[in-house]
Amino acid sequence: MGGHVPAVELMRISDEVPERAAAAAARFGWRESCPDWRDITRSADIDLVDVVTPNDAHKEVVLDAAAQGKAIVCEKPLAPTLEHAVEMVEAVERACVPTCVCLVYRMWPAVQLARLLIARGDLGSVHSYRGYFLQDYALDPSMPFTWRFDRNRAGAGSIGDIGSHAIDLAEFLLDDEIVSVFAVTRTIISERPADETIGARPVRVEVDDEADLLIKFAAGPQGVIQTSWISTGTKTDWGFEIRGRKGAITFSWSRANELRLYLASDPAETQGFKTIVLGPQHPNAEYFWPLPGLNIGYQEAFVITLGHFLSGDGDAPTFREGQRATAVIDAALRSAESGTWKNVA
Amino acid sequence: MGGHVPAVELMRISDEVPERAAAAAARFGWRESCPDWRDITRSADIDLVDVVTPNDAHKEVVLDAAAQGKAIVCEKPLAPTLEHAVEMVEAVERACVPTCVCLVYRMWPAVQLARLLIARGDLGSVHSYRGYFLQDYALDPSMPFTWRFDRNRAGAGSIGDIGSHAIDLAEFLLDDEIVSVFAVTRTIISERPADETIGARPVRVEVDDEADLLIKFAAGPQGVIQTSWISTGTKTDWGFEIRGRKGAITFSWSRANELRLYLASDPAETQGFKTIVLGPQHPNAEYFWPLPGLNIGYQEAFVITLGHFLSGDGDAPTFREGQRATAVIDAALRSAESGTWKNVA
Amino acid sequence: MGGHVPAVELMRISDEVPERAAAAAARFGWRESCPDWRDITRSADIDLVDVVTPNDAHKEVVLDAAAQGKAIVCEKPLAPTLEHAVEMVEAVERACVPTCVCLVYRMWPAVQLARLLIARGDLGSVHSYRGYFLQDYALDPSMPFTWRFDRNRAGAGSIGDIGSHAIDLAEFLLDDEIVSVFAVTRTIISERPADETIGARPVRVEVDDEADLLIKFAAGPQGVIQTSWISTGTKTDWGFEIRGRKGAITFSWSRANELRLYLASDPAETQGFKTIVLGPQHPNAEYFWPLPGLNIGYQEAFVITLGHFLSGDGDAPTFREGQRATAVIDAALRSAESGTWKNVA
Amino acid sequence: MGGHVPAVELMRISDEVPERAAAAAARFGWRESCPDWRDITRSADIDLVDVVTPNDAHKEVVLDAAAQGKAIVCEKPLAPTLEHAVEMVEAVERACVPTCVCLVYRMWPAVQLARLLIARGDLGSVHSYRGYFLQDYALDPSMPFTWRFDRNRAGAGSIGDIGSHAIDLAEFLLDDEIVSVFAVTRTIISERPADETIGARPVRVEVDDEADLLIKFAAGPQGVIQTSWISTGTKTDWGFEIRGRKGAITFSWSRANELRLYLASDPAETQGFKTIVLGPQHPNAEYFWPLPGLNIGYQEAFVITLGHFLSGDGDAPTFREGQRATAVIDAALRSAESGTWKNVA
Repeated sequence: MGGHVPAVELMRISDEVPERAAAAAARFGWRESCPDWRDITRSADIDLVDVVTPNDAHKEVVLDAAAQGKAIVCEKPLAPTLEHAVEMVEAVERACVPTCVCLVYRMWPAVQLARLLIARGDLGSVHSYRGYFLQDYALDPSMPFTWRFDRNRAGAGSIGDIGSHAIDLAEFLLDDEIVSVFAVTRTIISERPADETIGARPVRVEVDDEADLLIKFAAGPQGVIQTSWISTGTKTDWGFEIRGRKGAITFSWSRANELRLYLASDPAETQGFKTIVLGPQHPNAEYFWPLPGLNIGYQEAFVITLGHFLSGDGDAPTFREGQRATAVIDAALRSAESGTWKNVA
Repeated sequence: MGGHVPAVELMRISDEVPERAAAAAARFGWRESCPDWRDITRSADIDLVDVVTPNDAHKEVVLDAAAQGKAIVCEKPLAPTLEHAVEMVEAVERACVPTCVCLVYRMWPAVQLARLLIARGDLGSVHSYRGYFLQDYALDPSMPFTWRFDRNRAGAGSIGDIGSHAIDLAEFLLDDEIVSVFAVTRTIISERPADETIGARPVRVEVDDEADLLIKFAAGPQGVIQTSWISTGTKTDWGFEIRGRKGAITFSWSRANELRLYLASDPAETQGFKTIVLGPQHPNAEYFWPLPGLNIGYQEAFVITLGHFLSGDGDAPTFREGQRATAVIDAALRSAESGTWKNVA
Repeated sequence: MGGHVPAVELMRISDEVPERAAAAAARFGWRESCPDWRDITRSADIDLVDVVTPNDAHKEVVLDAAAQGKAIVCEKPLAPTLEHAVEMVEAVERACVPTCVCLVYRMWPAVQLARLLIARGDLGSVHSYRGYFLQDYALDPSMPFTWRFDRNRAGAGSIGDIGSHAIDLAEFLLDDEIVSVFAVTRTIISERPADETIGARPVRVEVDDEADLLIKFAAGPQGVIQTSWISTGTKTDWGFEIRGRKGAITFSWSRANELRLYLASDPAETQGFKTIVLGPQHPNAEYFWPLPGLNIGYQEAFVITLGHFLSGDGDAPTFREGQRATAVIDAALRSAESGTWKNVA
Repeated sequence: MGGHVPAVELMRISDEVPERAAAAAARFGWRESCPDWRDITRSADIDLVDVVTPNDAHKEVVLDAAAQGKAIVCEKPLAPTLEHAVEMVEAVERACVPTCVCLVYRMWPAVQLARLLIARGDLGSVHSYRGYFLQDYALDPSMPFTWRFDRNRAGAGSIGDIGSHAIDLAEFLLDDEIVSVFAVTRTIISERPADETIGARPVRVEVDDEADLLIKFAAGPQGVIQTSWISTGTKTDWGFEIRGRKGAITFSWSRANELRLYLASDPAETQGFKTIVLGPQHPNAEYFWPLPGLNIGYQEAFVITLGHFLSGDGDAPTFREGQRATAVIDAALRSAESGTWKNVA
């Protein structure tokens, strides 16, 4: 955030159900609410549009906002399909509007520090990557069918909802592209009760509850990415293990304010993983507390991301970067279907 | 926060150095700044005064604010001496103004859950308590002398600065009062360079760098509290271990979004400490994320505390409650001097 | 070890280099040493033969020992190829001699407890398995070429040496068979200095340093197994994560005397993974200390396994069971070569 | 173990109940058993006597064994009172017999490494020590009264049984003597059922279930030692935290094969506690596995201690060293009674 972060006013929030829009406006302090999102995208008094609809609706809003020259923030995954993503990226680039996709974890201090240490060569040549994003919120089979379980609306299941983070982190940390994927996906809870319609028939689930990906990076490293929203007992954890010829780094969100670093060059009798407690000397933690170990949480992941985006310093992830995760997910779904390796488009 | 939390406006911030006041106002979004704090306490357009001065200046500001009928928030420890604290509590109670002392960690979800489990009897009769608050920010002997190292201004060292939290937590968790204390204090770095005055002679430090307290609660439990700001390698950690006849609870800020619970009634082959990941089903975590494990940080400790205070639900710690920690610190300092057990006044 | 464990005498140890045999005999307390292993297999005063040769030599010794009616213990993997394994199993079964393959970790108390909890249904229907065996002893490229890096002698690299354990554990824990495998293998350190022959040319390594396996069990669960001997920073760790509809279990050798158990049926506010400290109430820990938490180590894995084998209670892993891991490794190597799923023979 | 470790034969085991002696002999492989321990101490064919009686009986056996010139191993604490300990040390030193007290944890690799790092100055000047030994085996009030709960026979409760280890470790790690103690002791379970005598009246417990000690070392460091055998939920854990001006070390038996080291001299952005996994490059781990992380357990603590003792290299703890812990316990009990600091005799 080299530059100035302009103050933000919460102007107008939209929901097709007017009462729901009004309630959200009241609760979160927005000036107004409206049932038609075009009253946001086409409003002259609005500079920035934040798209938090279901995945399949991202495109229409983004295209309209881009056409009006708005800056755009969009939830992840950027799109339910690679086709949508490509169209969106083309539109915003043609319109030359600033964009930000909420792959916010890449801005997390531990991730930033890890990337920095890898880039400067502390790990040497990296040979192995393990990434994961695990939750268990969908384990309960009585959880109703929502758009997240709808292949047409969400595009994918856990691999899209949280796998988009895991994939983005892999490429961001190694500063490299995944070129090839082999994937298996599993739908364990094959049908769910219809949402809010007591007595209705259960709905068939066609997206993955879990996915295991084998990946190959352009520069050579290989590895595994695992995603699940039925990862029994693991409420929320994501992380990575990165191994190189000279060192290794591991991280788990369950210890979100720490990074673990191993250097093979340490003296033999005192070799070991070092637990670095994040603080003001680390990238993106510098905006918070003056002492290490005071901790930040999920909210600050957004604060950091939007701070960078608003400052215009170019550090926040763009739609073009968001398209990458969508492309890898696309390859993974094709691979899972065919049982063969697939190249990322 | 049963009640409504009113919106807050940041009106006026004060520092005796006008430039410093202006800079802080600009950085943090205050409307105005002023060199004389009485332009806050005596201003008709201000409802609430937040006292963040060095400890020895709390009293004068608080007394003035109380006289004007303002609601008051004050940093911890409430006062550098028990005498100050008593005078402040009398003044605010006489004036019937709402007060809040920033012993914010007692509002932390894991603490709230622990207190609830203890209160409902999950641990049975508690016999043993261990508490600690450890940092190492003052380990570097080149760290300059500031008011925190000045006995007249701070009242105490680590035992006041962070020990106030540890003491408050002990009493809050067990819903009991510490009645008797035996303490040792240590000043390891006995002098420090004068602050911002190059060439000046080092200043003698007369407050504790570390303190070990043996404590006895009214209802019988005994235990140990340790505080240090030279706890080499431990950037920031505080926590507790509470053992009862039927169960035990442990917590460490290094895993701030978890609580560990042991129940002796579990089947023999599956007994063990359970790691509870905090989330929407837990007290004071309910205001944040809809899933467990998304994590909150230091900031949210203040958000929760001030939310409760502003809602007027009576859950935020009052000055009278803040006086308790000051009284225990007072007994500890007297004990450390005499080498004998001292009763808490 | 329901039955009696007979006392053991260390009779004769063999190495083709007589001095090496004699030194080992002296160090470890064997009565005699000999250069020809047939002086063991064919000796009337010997009841049990322990085969600790390189993998490719297992078969000849085993066949000879079986022909003499000896009980046989053999190191893992049972054989460098599935063909060898099949021939060995046929021979020992024809000869009706008791056999034990040193897949000793399945006898580890935490593994035994996990299997028991899974078998009795604590996890409900299992959908996901993750297993791993990671070391970094081969990371140093100056480590000389030995038989372990020789495809003809070892059969496989990390996937054989330590992957045999990881595969065996997966099948043992779920009491199920892996029916299908997709694997990638990597050789990162592609040549190594010739062993003990200064000046000789480096030797090409043709076995895997790392392997990632996607697996499918007969009863439906799927998962991932990872093996590496160049897992930078991880000196020795193996473990598993097993997720079912009603619960989950995790284990890491880095906390070898603990098992972690999650039960979804716990009350919402106290759900979490429980850390069970192993002790006398747990299977195969009962033979050691009268209190939990006193810990056992690597040695006891062998003590337990051989104790069961010598007692004849049928709990120690047999050659037939050892053949399973060899069959899965065989499928994995075929899969890695073809880039397609392969069935386990 | 620079020197040769002679082979050991288990000659004769004694118990006043002959059947019990015979059963133990059979179970553990002793040649003979006898009801009178003098048939051991006075037997010409015996070189070494291992004293595992209740504490109050140590003295008579030791004095007899010393008079016969036997090497002597004795369980901890060396004696129930300082008087006994002094008499025993005088006797064995007069008789010039080799002695070993089973303060076996000081020989544990992590302890040896910690002492070595401290001695070579990695931590700089140490200012703070925390030690603890916690178990919960006596938490159940239905556990019968045995000699361990009998003040006359045991001398002390948790502070003797396991506190002897914690005290010995403190002095051994810092290579320093505790000169002054302030202690509180607690007896929570004040009576227990009479052992093996159904219907008998409960017996009053006069030894401590828990003790908290404040300690001062001769060279300046201060700290806390906590012992408990009713430490709810903690099956077995002992450990230490040692803080110096330049670094810190922590250890917990729950991760017995690791040591954690912090060096303040590390670069600011990669400071942190390093987790060193013990292995062949570390003192006393060198006798076991050729790779780090394969782990040893409780048994190996004895193997190492007796190996050193039998080799005669002088590294095993002698009775004179064992007398130290007894002296500190003596001071602690006097302090707890008087409520004042007491010097160690």
